[in-house]
Amino acid sequence: MSTSPNAPYHHGNLRQALLEAALVILEQQGEAGLGLRDLARAVGVSPAAPYRHFDSRAALLEALAVTGFQRFSARMEEVAATHSDDAMAAMGKTYVVFALQNANLFRLMFSPQLKKEARPGLRMAADAAFETLRHVVGGDVREGRIKALAAWAKVHGLAVLLLDGQIAIRAGEDTEALVAEIIGSL
Amino acid sequence: MSTSPNAPYHHGNLRQALLEAALVILEQQGEAGLGLRDLARAVGVSPAAPYRHFDSRAALLEALAVTGFQRFSARMEEVAATHSDDAMAAMGKTYVVFALQNANLFRLMFSPQLKKEARPGLRMAADAAFETLRHVVGGDVREGRIKALAAWAKVHGLAVLLLDGQIAIRAGEDTEALVAEIIGSL
Repeated sequence: MSTSPNAPYHHGNLRQALLEAALVILEQQGEAGLGLRDLARAVGVSPAAPYRHFDSRAALLEALAVTGFQRFSARMEEVAATHSDDAMAAMGKTYVVFALQNANLFRLMFSPQLKKEARPGLRMAADAAFETLRHVVGGDVREGRIKALAAWAKVHGLAVLLLDGQIAIRAGEDTEALVAEIIGSL
Repeated sequence: MSTSPNAPYHHGNLRQALLEAALVILEQQGEAGLGLRDLARAVGVSPAAPYRHFDSRAALLEALAVTGFQRFSARMEEVAATHSDDAMAAMGKTYVVFALQNANLFRLMFSPQLKKEARPGLRMAADAAFETLRHVVGGDVREGRIKALAAWAKVHGLAVLLLDGQIAIRAGEDTEALVAEIIGSL
């Protein structure tokens, strides 16, 4: 996500350039600042150009959420592969840190406005992320699902409470250290 | 919360009548439907009357959130007192069921828009709810805080994921039974 939203677009993959610029705008200005015309201006293409790739603003938001889940899954898989002893704790911390570092993207990924039932691509991307967790949890089908949902609820709740400013962080307290302690505590 | 928002106000405690009507409107129409003028109309008082109790719409929302935390704490304390063997599981289920049954009130109580740092009354009401949990968790000051935060994160995450439609409930599956299973699983 190092693309400047003001870097003019020259050649290559326009869809990818639009998505990268949109991710920067999303984090800097929030979802409200993200329109297809603003995006065209940021990438330096004609106002009509983004419509070749995204039918509507909703389609752009969906594509951003899908990209978010893909990056998130890739990071979770990498952590699971490199932390065989404490994969659950490492993944939990990664989940919360991802949310804190990409707050607006995280909110968009889990926005109730982007209904996953009506968006098969988004549903698949979200399910793939859950499957990474489900695989690490192990167990039989039924028990494994419940345990994975419990682990998900805990890290999602922690992420949301921190993002929404509900947990009182004490003066001098390190948020990531607190996250690691909470995740390791049960 | 049995007051109809259309029941005309006759006498007695206007502040309480306004709050009760506002709670009904909040659940039925969401926060966006809640203005002081609409509320005056619903209670059957003059448009200026609510201002005797609430300076602004923000003050009304804060009072609603405080009321929400007070009811929530009362319910949690009752559950803790009557479930000495499995207080944590019972409180966890109560937390999620409260969120599902009072979705808009729950969202308001934890809204990042209502900054608790700037609202001592709301901060106190929220802290009192956390203290109920903190007391049941036990342990020394430091360890108890971490464990209580972990338990809170889990039930808050479960509530938010369910409210936001992120957990795929299977056909014929009972949500409350699933909640109890997830809470009991670690």
